[in-house]
Amino acid sequence: MTDKVNMLNIKITIQYDGQDYAGWQIQPNIDTVQGKIEYAIQKIYGNHIRIYGAGRTDAGVHALGQVASFNLPMLKMPIERLHYALNYYLPRNIRIIKSEVMDGSFHARFSAKWREYIYVIDNSDVSIPFYSKYTFFYRKHIINTDTINEYAKLLLGEHDFTSFCSAEDENEHKYRCIEKAYSIRKGNLIYIIIKGNAFLHNMVRIIVGTLLELERKKEEYSTMTDILEAKDRTKALVTAPPHGLYFRRVMY
Amino acid sequence: MTDKVNMLNIKITIQYDGQDYAGWQIQPNIDTVQGKIEYAIQKIYGNHIRIYGAGRTDAGVHALGQVASFNLPMLKMPIERLHYALNYYLPRNIRIIKSEVMDGSFHARFSAKWREYIYVIDNSDVSIPFYSKYTFFYRKHIINTDTINEYAKLLLGEHDFTSFCSAEDENEHKYRCIEKAYSIRKGNLIYIIIKGNAFLHNMVRIIVGTLLELERKKEEYSTMTDILEAKDRTKALVTAPPHGLYFRRVMY
Repeated sequence: MTDKVNMLNIKITIQYDGQDYAGWQIQPNIDTVQGKIEYAIQKIYGNHIRIYGAGRTDAGVHALGQVASFNLPMLKMPIERLHYALNYYLPRNIRIIKSEVMDGSFHARFSAKWREYIYVIDNSDVSIPFYSKYTFFYRKHIINTDTINEYAKLLLGEHDFTSFCSAEDENEHKYRCIEKAYSIRKGNLIYIIIKGNAFLHNMVRIIVGTLLELERKKEEYSTMTDILEAKDRTKALVTAPPHGLYFRRVMY
Repeated sequence: MTDKVNMLNIKITIQYDGQDYAGWQIQPNIDTVQGKIEYAIQKIYGNHIRIYGAGRTDAGVHALGQVASFNLPMLKMPIERLHYALNYYLPRNIRIIKSEVMDGSFHARFSAKWREYIYVIDNSDVSIPFYSKYTFFYRKHIINTDTINEYAKLLLGEHDFTSFCSAEDENEHKYRCIEKAYSIRKGNLIYIIIKGNAFLHNMVRIIVGTLLELERKKEEYSTMTDILEAKDRTKALVTAPPHGLYFRRVMY
């Protein structure tokens, strides 16, 4: 690799269908989204170039607007054409939708101010077969989104989210700031939108699973605050399955 | 099995996502849609009951309104509940959307008057990753649906469709009647609708592949008639991939 000073700093925006991938992060001998994109870059530039994603997504989780950045020694084509070239070497369930040259200080992960996720629940009586890998089918009862929103409000602001992360989370500090957390219903589909500065491992899925359980059990609203304040990961109720989750966008 | 006279004749309407199945028809040790439904019936009724589909779909082909019929010695529940019980034992990518009791003469396959298929093409510049198993991505150029419709018109009525079936088709007679064949565009998606009394093996996919090739090559409209009249399966141009095809409905 040549002197960093002469490097171009590239930002790409990515959509993917996560059903066939063991998540974002590259792993040997397993299909991952990062692995597929690094392979496509290598096909064009000849050598291996490491890319950095704004957020890691688990196996089965989808993305509407994942962002990654990486350094290139040169551009072999106008920047607006780069994503077409990458898409040529990518499987159809991963698409680069935009490619941009950024100034040298930009980093997909460290420059991110906010990350937004959307979780999609199919609350139909008979589910739609084509949604089976893209929504969480929840037929137990008709979900009341007003109730969900009362619990969700209590998550807003900065809190220690120890109760809402998996045992595998390796972050030393568990304080995160949630700016938005609410649900809306469109027909039989329910969308839960959660926006925060950063997220712990499985945090969105544990929040969604807990919201659904509190609503189902008609728990006091204060139960959510109790779980949060316990700072104990055994207190949260359920981890919602990955296939309803979408990494929606990153704000810089 | 008991005396046929006392049997109930059941009609079910089925939707499925074909991506994980080796097609409709039951085969040993392979996941097929018919196999999954017969398994669900056996879970409820204790013994194996054969079902008959209105049409066989190939591996990867989807259904919005496949129909099957079968005989039951008795109903263990109100008929309106049967499909809920079956869905309980079915994977989420197969859903029975309706169950009805029919008179004894009804047969899903032999009573069918018309079958309708829809083929979906993603004609976007950058394809949508979530559509990769549900549409045929065709980026070569912007497809002109008016041109497609001029070729398609020439297929209407009764013809010998030998040129439009695979070598594996075992039907002795290749005459079929096409009542509708046209395309419409909605945004970047193109829908090709084909309705006929019955179809030979791969017939819809070969018709679609040929329509797209004729349009791309700007062939004379009469080329379609030449292919049809040749009654030679080497004359048709291309077989479109299975994952864009949906068995839409059956009319009785």
